[in-house]
Amino acid sequence: MYTHVPPAEIESRSLAIIDAEVPDPRPFSGEEWSVARRMIHTTADFDLLRHIRFHPDAVRAGKEALLAGADIVTDTCMALAGIPRRRLDPLGCAARCLMNDPAVAERAARDGVTRAWAAVDEVMDQGGADIFVIGNAPTALYRLLERIREGARPPRLIVGMPVGFVNAAESKELLLAQDSIPFISIAGRKGGSSLAACVINALAELVRLS
Amino acid sequence: MYTHVPPAEIESRSLAIIDAEVPDPRPFSGEEWSVARRMIHTTADFDLLRHIRFHPDAVRAGKEALLAGADIVTDTCMALAGIPRRRLDPLGCAARCLMNDPAVAERAARDGVTRAWAAVDEVMDQGGADIFVIGNAPTALYRLLERIREGARPPRLIVGMPVGFVNAAESKELLLAQDSIPFISIAGRKGGSSLAACVINALAELVRLS
Repeated sequence: MYTHVPPAEIESRSLAIIDAEVPDPRPFSGEEWSVARRMIHTTADFDLLRHIRFHPDAVRAGKEALLAGADIVTDTCMALAGIPRRRLDPLGCAARCLMNDPAVAERAARDGVTRAWAAVDEVMDQGGADIFVIGNAPTALYRLLERIREGARPPRLIVGMPVGFVNAAESKELLLAQDSIPFISIAGRKGGSSLAACVINALAELVRLS
Repeated sequence: MYTHVPPAEIESRSLAIIDAEVPDPRPFSGEEWSVARRMIHTTADFDLLRHIRFHPDAVRAGKEALLAGADIVTDTCMALAGIPRRRLDPLGCAARCLMNDPAVAERAARDGVTRAWAAVDEVMDQGGADIFVIGNAPTALYRLLERIREGARPPRLIVGMPVGFVNAAESKELLLAQDSIPFISIAGRKGGSSLAACVINALAELVRLS
């Protein structure tokens, strides 16, 4: 039955329900659990717990980047819209998405690549970013890893969670197969803009509580 | 292994994979399957197939509303960002989200309700909307149904998919328990902005192909 719950209580009650439904021993602990739990909160999909992957330095690197006023790049406007200014402004962080940038559209047409690919090239040519948030485009993740391999400045964290049936899992395999750049990812097909964005919100919340 | 796929082929290949993995008899057919399949495409979560619910008139009502240049209201900026202009402009439709409207923030503070609740009141006081897209806030769906019961102009379609652990399932039970307003929904906890937005994109695609 629907009963009114004070807005401030909704989140804490939700997190307590997830805690209760995933008893110890949990697949993740400490701050990694806080991030994974936020991903469950965002989707109500407990199956994710079998597929979420953390590079051992990911949470520390992500928090440090946010504390240092990270320049965050997302692959979709949806992911950008999912990271509210009230989370970023107090940290001096800024997020941007180049998918609707006319220079990117032009570059994609000229090079015969997806706009997601061209957007990564544009960012890397401009000096890179501190955190990449990729929730949709396998081509963005693939191209990002390629540019880094070719010598571009690597980000401090890659939230790499393209979703889908063609090249999403494969692009994430490339991310998971390297260990020089910290990542938070989801093995297999699942992912998406909401999930990728909520990871940044979870990390920002950890910074706020630290 | 990651292999390059021409952008134009990615979607059709993805949909063909879903078709192959969900053989007949499918839980949905015809245009309802096109919408449900788009929801799988967006999340790679086949479990949704057990929970998606269509009012019998939902697809027809949604297509008609889009063809008539629907005024679409979303409950989050993320859902708004997930419905691209290239889908809406050719149909003469427009989408909006009032969550960041200063009048809504003021109203929420004054009435002691969530911004999502106040946003629904603001829209209904201004004459309502043709399609509501609710992917996040149970309070938005709850208040919408309440205002309609109190006599406000009902929308032609409600895409009602709040996600979460507190009141999300309960708010959707209220939607599913009525049959006067066509709805597309997900029983239980699952939902989200990406899913709610993709339903509009699926309907717009059906209109384009009609």
